Amino acid sequence: MKKSNNLKLQTLKGFRDFLPEKMAIRREVIKRLEKVFEKYGFAELQTPSLEYQEVLRGKYGKEAEKLMYLFEDPGGRKVGLRYDLTVPLARVIASYQDLPKPFRRYQIQPVWRAEKPQKGRYRELTQCDVDIIGSDSPLADAEILALTSDALKALEFSSFKIKVNSRQVLYSSMKKAGIPKKKWSTILRSIDKLDKKSQEEVEKELSEKGLTDKQIKSVFVAILNAKPDSFLNEVIRNAKAMGARNVEFSPTLSRGLDYYTGPIFETVVDEPKIGSITGGGRYDELLGTLGGPDLPATGTSFGLDRLADVIEELNLWPNISETPTAVLVTVFSPELLNKSIKIANFFRENDINTEIYPNEDVKLDKQLKYADRKNIPWVAIIGPEEVKTGKIVLKNLTTGKQKILAVENLIKEIQ
Amino acid sequence: MKKSNNLKLQTLKGFRDFLPEKMAIRREVIKRLEKVFEKYGFAELQTPSLEYQEVLRGKYGKEAEKLMYLFEDPGGRKVGLRYDLTVPLARVIASYQDLPKPFRRYQIQPVWRAEKPQKGRYRELTQCDVDIIGSDSPLADAEILALTSDALKALEFSSFKIKVNSRQVLYSSMKKAGIPKKKWSTILRSIDKLDKKSQEEVEKELSEKGLTDKQIKSVFVAILNAKPDSFLNEVIRNAKAMGARNVEFSPTLSRGLDYYTGPIFETVVDEPKIGSITGGGRYDELLGTLGGPDLPATGTSFGLDRLADVIEELNLWPNISETPTAVLVTVFSPELLNKSIKIANFFRENDINTEIYPNEDVKLDKQLKYADRKNIPWVAIIGPEEVKTGKIVLKNLTTGKQKILAVENLIKEIQ
Repeated sequence: MKKSNNLKLQTLKGFRDFLPEKMAIRREVIKRLEKVFEKYGFAELQTPSLEYQEVLRGKYGKEAEKLMYLFEDPGGRKVGLRYDLTVPLARVIASYQDLPKPFRRYQIQPVWRAEKPQKGRYRELTQCDVDIIGSDSPLADAEILALTSDALKALEFSSFKIKVNSRQVLYSSMKKAGIPKKKWSTILRSIDKLDKKSQEEVEKELSEKGLTDKQIKSVFVAILNAKPDSFLNEVIRNAKAMGARNVEFSPTLSRGLDYYTGPIFETVVDEPKIGSITGGGRYDELLGTLGGPDLPATGTSFGLDRLADVIEELNLWPNISETPTAVLVTVFSPELLNKSIKIANFFRENDINTEIYPNEDVKLDKQLKYADRKNIPWVAIIGPEEVKTGKIVLKNLTTGKQKILAVENLIKEIQ
Repeated sequence: MKKSNNLKLQTLKGFRDFLPEKMAIRREVIKRLEKVFEKYGFAELQTPSLEYQEVLRGKYGKEAEKLMYLFEDPGGRKVGLRYDLTVPLARVIASYQDLPKPFRRYQIQPVWRAEKPQKGRYRELTQCDVDIIGSDSPLADAEILALTSDALKALEFSSFKIKVNSRQVLYSSMKKAGIPKKKWSTILRSIDKLDKKSQEEVEKELSEKGLTDKQIKSVFVAILNAKPDSFLNEVIRNAKAMGARNVEFSPTLSRGLDYYTGPIFETVVDEPKIGSITGGGRYDELLGTLGGPDLPATGTSFGLDRLADVIEELNLWPNISETPTAVLVTVFSPELLNKSIKIANFFRENDINTEIYPNEDVKLDKQLKYADRKNIPWVAIIGPEEVKTGKIVLKNLTTGKQKILAVENLIKEIQ
């Protein structure tokens, strides 16, 4: 769709209009995710777009705070737009302490981050989060992995990898390599890049961070020879028993967020190279830190925008329709309008998505052209001849063929 | 659900958390509305939450602008949160000029207005809009009314009234009563209150607005004796032919927004007294004014928040479940965990929404209590006895009865 260059009509950088063709894919992704989330017993939660800054600030680190949409509302309150779905979840868990635990919730809502816009990165993005609050068992993490696998199957991804590792395992490796604790975070952030960068590049980065060659070598030996600990083994074993596919121990996976305390997860697809499409892990201390009760928690997040981008780029769903309309009922003339209305009613009563062309004065070929441009698959024509015989012309715009049918045979033909 | 009084955990006034029980109703309302919208051939659009202030300002009047969330983003751009769905629609129509017309779109998104919070009025509210852009025919308005009636039926409302009137008809009455044009707007705003106020109160208001007793009398005579014009008659006739129910000409309906140019619509329910649940009309000049192309347009808006409030208050959907979970598979002991996982897999493969209790160390009666608190209808128990016999205990928590069943009979029992 060509877009106007009129500055007054621009959307903000990193913000997008979703016209019906894009919306159809997004809606279908959400529908399939919701179905899987509910199949695993997760119930939906929604929280406000705006929160008090007190709730948001001091939770994500200084760098993140620069990306937040913080401002004063018309009443002078200091407010901010939601930055993720985890902090609002923590607030909810703390606010409604008698929610039954373990609490399984899913939440599909936009979040706002003023990051530098680039391919696959937006300033308004929709996260689809699932979390289990109140279980310290590896069984909870396994449920999250099984759900992830099931969801990707429902989205028709065939070649994905669910990488798993554990913060505990990474920390053991750091200890083994003799690295002082205060350097763990920064080193792990470099290690995490082994996906995109060569070992040499990462070694250089570590050297710039002040590690000796000997230390660097020890780090690599420790990390690359790491094995899952017993908790992570339980997670993987149970996830596989639950049917999770393509779960792989990945000793270099470390994920950026400091709040993970146990298993961490990330899903990648090989093509297109668009980064991770899901990411999560166990965060047993976060809720307490956020002012919530001290409860163990684990979960993951699906990025709707990246998922939709990948599905579009891979043309995974070639048959998705940009229009919900199955049939356009044309209007031959003002005199025959009532006949068209009757047929449209009949279609709608039979749950066929139907438009009446909403102008009785427009010529039939213009009405047909409209159906064609919108890729509406069927057109019904009720002209004077049809009124005489009591039959309807039904044209298939995909094949170009048309049939003259009795009313009672219309539905079967379209279905 | 009891809520914490901790100030740090408060949501902003007029903003709400939707816990699973509330969300279930909201989600169901949206699902039913979407189904009807698509049955009438409307396709989904979404637009950004934030727009340039240039797009938003000068469109709604000074009073409205005071209620807007306007601020600077982290890059210093002047931005604002969406105030309604009509201005963004106008921007979209102007931006993508080659969208096929007539363009039918629906849009279900939150808007933000810093109004004084009160019962049924929120600062973050979700509008569900349907509009047809590019048709000046009464047929388009009739489609909107038929859709409105169908949607309210789908929501199981029995006693609603779709009131219709026309700006043209109101203006004729003003002329007939000899009122100068510049007073029409303010008088019509008073007339619109005849729903909630007595004729005496409205007369008093008009007198305060400077009308003579004679003028007031003429206004009432003209308004109360008004008849639909030919355009509105066509709208009503076609809407009824399309099956719209409870459409009533209401000569006092005038609606606040100045931009309506033809037919106007509003739906009310008698109980509870919560104001209108839909409202709309024809606005043939608005798109041009908003910087869009000069195209006729008509549409209506459903207020999700009020609809959900009414459905809850009337207890219209007593059977809606706060949890999507149909069955909780309990875990008898760590040794028998694998048996429970197998049964849970079996349920999920058969599209039964299933939770495994995510902790193998918790006693069975605590697991049952959890299912009970969450109103999960079924519980499956696989203990040592069941492993021996190869059967499963399936307990119905609603009736309290339990059966011992072979695996192949589980699904039938739950369905």
